[in-house]
Amino acid sequence: MLDRRAAMAASAAATGASLITKTQAQAPETPEVTRILARYVTRARFEDLPEAVRREGHRTLLNYVGVAVGGSHHETVGRALKAIGPFSGKPEANILGRSERLDILNAALVNGISSHIFDYDDTHLKTIIHPAGPVVSAILALSQHKPVTGTNFLHAMIMGIEAECRIGNAVYPSHYDLGWHITGSCGVFGSAVACGRLLGLNEQQMIWALGIAASQPVGLKVQFGSMTKSFHPGRAAQNGMTAALLAQQGFTADNAALEGKDGWAQAVSRQVRWEEVTQGLGNRYEAALNTYKPFACGIVAHPAIDAAIQLRDQAPVDQIETIELHANPLVLSLTGKTDPKTGLEGKFSIYHCIAVGLIFGAAGEKQFQDNVVRDPRILRLRKLVTVRTDPAVSAAQCDLIVRLKDGRVLSRHIETAIGSTQKPMSDAALEAKFLDLSDGILPRPQAEKLIQLCWQIERQDEASALARGAAA
Amino acid sequence: MLDRRAAMAASAAATGASLITKTQAQAPETPEVTRILARYVTRARFEDLPEAVRREGHRTLLNYVGVAVGGSHHETVGRALKAIGPFSGKPEANILGRSERLDILNAALVNGISSHIFDYDDTHLKTIIHPAGPVVSAILALSQHKPVTGTNFLHAMIMGIEAECRIGNAVYPSHYDLGWHITGSCGVFGSAVACGRLLGLNEQQMIWALGIAASQPVGLKVQFGSMTKSFHPGRAAQNGMTAALLAQQGFTADNAALEGKDGWAQAVSRQVRWEEVTQGLGNRYEAALNTYKPFACGIVAHPAIDAAIQLRDQAPVDQIETIELHANPLVLSLTGKTDPKTGLEGKFSIYHCIAVGLIFGAAGEKQFQDNVVRDPRILRLRKLVTVRTDPAVSAAQCDLIVRLKDGRVLSRHIETAIGSTQKPMSDAALEAKFLDLSDGILPRPQAEKLIQLCWQIERQDEASALARGAAA
Repeated sequence: MLDRRAAMAASAAATGASLITKTQAQAPETPEVTRILARYVTRARFEDLPEAVRREGHRTLLNYVGVAVGGSHHETVGRALKAIGPFSGKPEANILGRSERLDILNAALVNGISSHIFDYDDTHLKTIIHPAGPVVSAILALSQHKPVTGTNFLHAMIMGIEAECRIGNAVYPSHYDLGWHITGSCGVFGSAVACGRLLGLNEQQMIWALGIAASQPVGLKVQFGSMTKSFHPGRAAQNGMTAALLAQQGFTADNAALEGKDGWAQAVSRQVRWEEVTQGLGNRYEAALNTYKPFACGIVAHPAIDAAIQLRDQAPVDQIETIELHANPLVLSLTGKTDPKTGLEGKFSIYHCIAVGLIFGAAGEKQFQDNVVRDPRILRLRKLVTVRTDPAVSAAQCDLIVRLKDGRVLSRHIETAIGSTQKPMSDAALEAKFLDLSDGILPRPQAEKLIQLCWQIERQDEASALARGAAA
Repeated sequence: MLDRRAAMAASAAATGASLITKTQAQAPETPEVTRILARYVTRARFEDLPEAVRREGHRTLLNYVGVAVGGSHHETVGRALKAIGPFSGKPEANILGRSERLDILNAALVNGISSHIFDYDDTHLKTIIHPAGPVVSAILALSQHKPVTGTNFLHAMIMGIEAECRIGNAVYPSHYDLGWHITGSCGVFGSAVACGRLLGLNEQQMIWALGIAASQPVGLKVQFGSMTKSFHPGRAAQNGMTAALLAQQGFTADNAALEGKDGWAQAVSRQVRWEEVTQGLGNRYEAALNTYKPFACGIVAHPAIDAAIQLRDQAPVDQIETIELHANPLVLSLTGKTDPKTGLEGKFSIYHCIAVGLIFGAAGEKQFQDNVVRDPRILRLRKLVTVRTDPAVSAAQCDLIVRLKDGRVLSRHIETAIGSTQKPMSDAALEAKFLDLSDGILPRPQAEKLIQLCWQIERQDEASALARGAAA
């Protein structure tokens, strides 16, 4: 799938044969991870991407544009624009879904914020990274500064996603368990690589870009439920672009910023599996494993929502006596809010998520608005929910048991929820989600044209058509 | 030293009496660190600062301006300007020592880079934080956007230094040992607090500013020896200012970003002593403990350089047979480069540091230029140095033993090196350092006027006089 030289490099990289050296700073068995990754992402060719990877790339792009447009009028974005806008440089880049333009670095920040507002973005399930936010926010803006073809744009996006997800794989779950919001802390690498590709960085410059990115991880899970959660992918996009721009000008960083002594992995994780980064480059693609949320909240709540929606027709709301969920402990640790007061908090309440599934048969953005969270019918149902956690239940699974007043017991087992790699959303469902999100923000014909632009990104001579076409 | 209400708050803070609450996220014994700190820094009054703290503030400012002007023409700064300049907004803020102007966020970045180029900046010895870089770089730029008096400027600087050094104390040494370049990773808080003061943030906004800063720690020690090391204080300045600007517009963060579950301390340190942040606020000042480097390299090398300079007169270079240093293990782990090739690498070579001390009787910026590192006399002497490390020797101490060809043995014990809190540089020595650094960059009369501006910052109606006065 790679050309011969790149394949050889990738193969050498996989075994580490030609690139492992002993330095003062590293144990002899540590491969030169930063260099191996930089070499791969700079040498890889678009023509070698498998069809399935390109196709998933189109879906990733479509989902990103939809969620960024959809989130663009939230007050989180408004406050960020008010704070940062006065200091913006040349207004080269569009803010999706809005009329403002900012310099490319600040546009990357703001679009990244928009994309994460609704917690409705794409998910790499192995790491819970939301891959597109940091990467696409950066290169959409960059495409408005430096002309780039649609194929190069798509390829840069895929390389960026490979970098962030592979690095995420290497440190997950330790890194995540320490408190890092992995989308921001690994996203900087995705943005640096994608921007680096579009800027034409050579291998040494790409090593520096990765290094400068390594010095700027973004994001803590403590912020879940506040505006700063959405700041994370935006700032990661901006930091990665900054890293690539600096590296382009010869701004140096250590050659082993990821793996070296006192480097990134040592600082942010207690465990690391470097083979996740170095092996199978050009053969297996993390970008092909991307998934898209059918529900506008964290992925751990999805099995329960899926189950609730499936039980809805059999369970009239006023007949429900108790609701019991059996689930993985992550469900409570991430979405354990019993008494949410706002729509945003509702996303972190498994109780709210189950209630909207049973009442509305949906959990889109409309079901996480403040008035829904305060709806007395929802409040009543929320209080009927009990959660039993069990580490033996995987995070993809759950059992939902609803007892009715007449004594009947309804239950539903979810093995994998809709939206997972096993049960992906269809292209049509992705389009419907896009249209739902852009409704009221972009005119319908513009939204439909945008959808086609995403599917046909490879035919664009100028990828900037996308950012321009997504402006209000 | 505080007014009555603030004193009561500080006292309550110290005991934690009124502010400790039990939440889902925290163990009952964890105080509300973020809130306690935010409350203190927003309520503190300039009039309550002890004279010694203000005086050290003047010295901190003078040293900062000198090193930032001195570093301003290094290629590291040139490359950063080339990369970032094209995207700058309204050119409101000066780059010290240069003629360019950038928007305030980017000016904070670039001035922060300049200030750290020579590794010649101020040092809080308990944490090895260089306090001024992240803080002063930010507020100098901000003072050119929002008019601010000299006293408010000085006070904001001191509050910023308190925040970053106290947070540093709480996590040192674990945080540092994990690989973090503590100047950048704690510096974000210093910048956020100082900018927050000048923007007039209230307590809740300051909590948010600290929270947004917590999500953006900067800096890894693996970068020592590359340009990215200097990037760290600059980016910390920029990140903290961004946090304060966002908080001012109501951009929310978690109220317990420092101490909460999945918060900053959990992610970046294995140990934490929160009393270092919460106790003695308004009574003891970390800002009073700032020190200034007489030598243009990392502080761990200073005892050895001090010893070498003291032995110089008795040890003619061509008579030296062997040189032996007994020192703390940190000396080798931070400055163990045996064969530096560039001036920058020379700063991380204890061998080079000792050689220049013995040959030149000085270790200023001139002794860390590329041609000096390649000087055959230096090369010869470097190879004669042996380092024996011993954890029982404190990092402040060392013994240097020089054996001459005629059999004589010279030795010098250093208990605390010049530039430490016990043996501080004099005001006159600081002025001489300033003039040496600004020589060739600013005309002598301008440099002398700048020195007076620093000493008399409290008399300035407009603190921006400083940034304007330091431009070339």
